[in-house]
Amino acid sequence: MTADGIDVTTLSNTRRVRIEWGDCDPAGIIFYPRYFEIFDAATAALFERALGLTKFQQLKQFDFAGYPLAKTRARFLRPTRFGDDVTVDSTIAFDHASFQVEHELSLGGATCVECSETRVWVVRDPSTGGIKAQPVPQAVRAKFGA
Amino acid sequence: MTADGIDVTTLSNTRRVRIEWGDCDPAGIIFYPRYFEIFDAATAALFERALGLTKFQQLKQFDFAGYPLAKTRARFLRPTRFGDDVTVDSTIAFDHASFQVEHELSLGGATCVECSETRVWVVRDPSTGGIKAQPVPQAVRAKFGA
Amino acid sequence: MTADGIDVTTLSNTRRVRIEWGDCDPAGIIFYPRYFEIFDAATAALFERALGLTKFQQLKQFDFAGYPLAKTRARFLRPTRFGDDVTVDSTIAFDHASFQVEHELSLGGATCVECSETRVWVVRDPSTGGIKAQPVPQAVRAKFGA
Amino acid sequence: MTADGIDVTTLSNTRRVRIEWGDCDPAGIIFYPRYFEIFDAATAALFERALGLTKFQQLKQFDFAGYPLAKTRARFLRPTRFGDDVTVDSTIAFDHASFQVEHELSLGGATCVECSETRVWVVRDPSTGGIKAQPVPQAVRAKFGA
Repeated sequence: MTADGIDVTTLSNTRRVRIEWGDCDPAGIIFYPRYFEIFDAATAALFERALGLTKFQQLKQFDFAGYPLAKTRARFLRPTRFGDDVTVDSTIAFDHASFQVEHELSLGGATCVECSETRVWVVRDPSTGGIKAQPVPQAVRAKFGA
Repeated sequence: MTADGIDVTTLSNTRRVRIEWGDCDPAGIIFYPRYFEIFDAATAALFERALGLTKFQQLKQFDFAGYPLAKTRARFLRPTRFGDDVTVDSTIAFDHASFQVEHELSLGGATCVECSETRVWVVRDPSTGGIKAQPVPQAVRAKFGA
Repeated sequence: MTADGIDVTTLSNTRRVRIEWGDCDPAGIIFYPRYFEIFDAATAALFERALGLTKFQQLKQFDFAGYPLAKTRARFLRPTRFGDDVTVDSTIAFDHASFQVEHELSLGGATCVECSETRVWVVRDPSTGGIKAQPVPQAVRAKFGA
Repeated sequence: MTADGIDVTTLSNTRRVRIEWGDCDPAGIIFYPRYFEIFDAATAALFERALGLTKFQQLKQFDFAGYPLAKTRARFLRPTRFGDDVTVDSTIAFDHASFQVEHELSLGGATCVECSETRVWVVRDPSTGGIKAQPVPQAVRAKFGA
């Protein structure tokens, strides 16, 4: 709870990722959808670190169906290629109905990609057989505030 | 050439894409990086239609190294899942140093994803062994104006 | 039911697939795990054609959890690359506890890849939270015999 | 050099890999083409360890275009799922025109997948614009014998 009364909790995580041959395209640089695979795993790593549970264990404990994207945007500043060991710094912030994750992917200290995600917490909806959004449970948010 | 003197050319393309089992995640919906694979192929299809050449043939004819992304943003409005046959409508617009592609992915007439791309035309840079941006050749732009 | 008393049913399917830029690696040829994505979708297409249902609809109707691979083997005879429109011919045969699918991927009449799959039919196992194999239901096999 | 005069060199490598949410399908288990991505990276890691160079550096030093698959076969014994940290043990053996890599992927000591690869060393073929196989250079093989 910040001074201005807005409930904001944050946590950051940093990980190393190797760009592989199979991540790259005929131009010899990473095929950009692979970045989104990296960012999705980085968001999962944030939750795993905060909750002390893998996503598989989270799904059992909290009875939800994932945290799919509502929005994303990314800027690609420098290409990366196979053999590069990049660093991904991720920071999460919650608001009332969703949460944001900022990822910065860098190589040798130079930013290569900046990505922002807005995600929602979803549960299975028995009435439709699909999924529906609901607020992130307080028990989950509390773990990020710790 | 529009009235205000800005050289803008556009072209649109529509394609059908099947969402496959392997595109989907344990929540049963598409894993969102797969959308970017779909959009990348949709942009390539726009160029193929305008130029009358596959991307492989384009690379030979125009001696370039692809058109990687500089920026993208996307909104995910409705999930899709395996077995869905979605429609992707793509529209391209050129400016001086780059080009934009707007993709709308829909199912049964309802928009599921909106995506905007800014891409640059790159050539191999012998001095670095990497790639560098340059304007889209006029011969290419002319094909989209046709 | 064949003359020798072995219950064998078969069905074949042929489909066209475009090899995309993003399927290819820095050598300019397809990154081979993409072939297995193509073959998985080809097997799903066989079932969809035989049953008249998408895989999503199949899962609802037959209350199973998919048909994962038990074994596969593949030979890669000629490379393919972005812009190639390849043909995939798939043939299925059932035995008592599993089924086999043979895929031949060709370009301009020349075989590029041969792949054999052995798959099992699995259902969710409430006792473990995982999945377990069981025979392909007769109602499914009958559709392939038709 | 073995007693029977056949030049055989071998080297093994072990790595840990996290199975991610995005690697898994609607059945909640890994989508099997992802295993082949893991195995391709494991083979690259073997070469990187033996040569002391990333694949990117290898391509510059040895002027080749990769080591694509000629054949593979795999057995899938136990499923894996997101959150699993699997172990991949890889062993390489060279013969005159190609090389074999055996991968064993295990979880908690239990084998989940066994995979055998036959790969060839390829160089760019200026006469066709494609690639062609040639023997693995002795300078490369020697590194594995060390």
